[in-house]
Amino acid sequence: MNGKYKAFWIDDDGFVEVIDQTKLPFIEETVLLKSADDAIVAIKDMIVRGAGVIGNIGALGVYLAVKENQDLKYIVEKSKEIRESRPTAVNLMWAVDIMLEGILNANADVNLLELAKNEAIKICDEDAERSLLISKYGCDIFGDIMKKKNKTSINVLTHCNAGWLAIVDEGSALAPIYEAKRRGIDIHVYVDETRPRNQGANLTAWELTQSDINHTVIPDNTGGYLMQQGLVDVCIVGADRVSANGDVANKIGTYLKALAAKDNDIPFYVAIPEGTLDFEIKDGVRDIPIETRSEDEVKYIKGLNKQGVVEELLLTPLTSKAVNYGFDITPARLVTALITEKGVCKTDENSIYKMFKENK
Amino acid sequence: MNGKYKAFWIDDDGFVEVIDQTKLPFIEETVLLKSADDAIVAIKDMIVRGAGVIGNIGALGVYLAVKENQDLKYIVEKSKEIRESRPTAVNLMWAVDIMLEGILNANADVNLLELAKNEAIKICDEDAERSLLISKYGCDIFGDIMKKKNKTSINVLTHCNAGWLAIVDEGSALAPIYEAKRRGIDIHVYVDETRPRNQGANLTAWELTQSDINHTVIPDNTGGYLMQQGLVDVCIVGADRVSANGDVANKIGTYLKALAAKDNDIPFYVAIPEGTLDFEIKDGVRDIPIETRSEDEVKYIKGLNKQGVVEELLLTPLTSKAVNYGFDITPARLVTALITEKGVCKTDENSIYKMFKENK
Repeated sequence: MNGKYKAFWIDDDGFVEVIDQTKLPFIEETVLLKSADDAIVAIKDMIVRGAGVIGNIGALGVYLAVKENQDLKYIVEKSKEIRESRPTAVNLMWAVDIMLEGILNANADVNLLELAKNEAIKICDEDAERSLLISKYGCDIFGDIMKKKNKTSINVLTHCNAGWLAIVDEGSALAPIYEAKRRGIDIHVYVDETRPRNQGANLTAWELTQSDINHTVIPDNTGGYLMQQGLVDVCIVGADRVSANGDVANKIGTYLKALAAKDNDIPFYVAIPEGTLDFEIKDGVRDIPIETRSEDEVKYIKGLNKQGVVEELLLTPLTSKAVNYGFDITPARLVTALITEKGVCKTDENSIYKMFKENK
Repeated sequence: MNGKYKAFWIDDDGFVEVIDQTKLPFIEETVLLKSADDAIVAIKDMIVRGAGVIGNIGALGVYLAVKENQDLKYIVEKSKEIRESRPTAVNLMWAVDIMLEGILNANADVNLLELAKNEAIKICDEDAERSLLISKYGCDIFGDIMKKKNKTSINVLTHCNAGWLAIVDEGSALAPIYEAKRRGIDIHVYVDETRPRNQGANLTAWELTQSDINHTVIPDNTGGYLMQQGLVDVCIVGADRVSANGDVANKIGTYLKALAAKDNDIPFYVAIPEGTLDFEIKDGVRDIPIETRSEDEVKYIKGLNKQGVVEELLLTPLTSKAVNYGFDITPARLVTALITEKGVCKTDENSIYKMFKENK
């Protein structure tokens, strides 16, 4: 794809331009990343976010480090900093490690900059191919659900943003929704607003608007009621990390929706590329580390004021404390299956091992 | 109590002054209700809210109708309007019916205005007495939990606002928390912000601040993770209506917390005065009507800007739709027990019937 994706692209000077996701849906602006440090800031400040794109920008960050300084010590040091810029993002570590391995194992006569650029593009291109495969497997599931229920339309509930702003170039959870649109399926999406950072209300709703897909934004509190009332046919979310036993770390609140889906007999799918699997972690509920973020993300909220300016408001008494865990863990028992580029996989240790380890 | 309560009071001219709950916690202002129509607006616009206080203002609204015009036709008509100003609020209907019964059955020589005023005050005073009883029964449960866990402190999670802004003069869900403070118990409260109207972040946090009670505001998405991590000892919420079989209609999102409590073996209590029980409804999940409110309450949010002005921000793409159900139903099977002025009651039809019907 020549380094051009929907959420970011390599420009003519070899720098990396990214859509500023902190300003969506109100202001459509890009940020130019000219160095590894710029990439780190972009990841830390969530100018880019989402498991896949964080990995991509991590890889491109290593490439930018090479572009700055081809001294291996510098590249290794910056790679380490990039790797640590978001603690829960396993794709980031994976992508940085692949980049570093390629660079450290390169022959002396290789053009290191070309190598790093090509390696980063390869990582992104492969992500794009994976997301296209996920879109097809996921949409087949939608078809099966409609068939089983004898319906000609489908209502999907999703949490946070796992679209092309998160994973090039289709997303994970949203990928089957884009495929449904291509197949002419009558699809409607309930979009959890996803407090505290409102990635649903801001990003998922914006993405769906871009593709003219019928959707309704709901408070995070609403999904349970919708499921009780039979208004949701299927839940689909992405993930930041899935452990070897199928436990799912995803945006805080995912667990609550999975509980409601279980309680109402509604299938709950997690769409991920293989890179999201972490075989090092045997028990996700116990061992996946959860990032704690600033309490100000809870106490303040960003939106568009009547003058058309993006502004922040205080939501609580000034003296009240708040706490801000970024993720929760949905136990494997609540997940119907993983939707991956290799196919649909039950969330138990054996099935996951068989699909992703034995076929290697 | 002479018509003086924390959240509202009868002033020297016989009008009703209420704390404007739409402006809390940022601006502490009152609104003067001089007519039944003023009371209807106050209820509809949520200047007052909460099951109990809506009932109180309903009763006082009937009194204000009498103060305006002692023609029975006018009073009956206004009472009907008041009764219908919030569809899910059973206390409102109950209070208006009691007022009307007293007025319609009064002897010709009775001072109707005095009668209506005294009847309304009696309704409020009895609510205050009930909330004090709830505070004691509920706090005894806290004591039992600490004893069982061998802890000297307790972490409570609550949703929405069921404090003295909702039920004079202690609240329902918050009543045991105030009692814990009085008993010198080391208590900490996780406050669900409670989107879309943020009654937790705005009202519960403010109430707890007023009483110097240790608390932390959390996004509605966070409670499940806290429970997984063992950070919550007990959940306690109020309710707008409880059916004869123990199903609980409360602020949207309650059901999700009850599911998480069940999944993590954490007790989940619903604190209500008896008036919240609706014996007409046998199956709450099926038959309690759920109010749909304006989508703008989801798409826009209110808070304090940097200039100290309360302002509203847009949170979604302008063209995105939103949906706003006010309540959900927590099935009785997820509720440990009801905490009422008559004691603690299991949530099954027999126990509820025995405690509230046989003892009549």
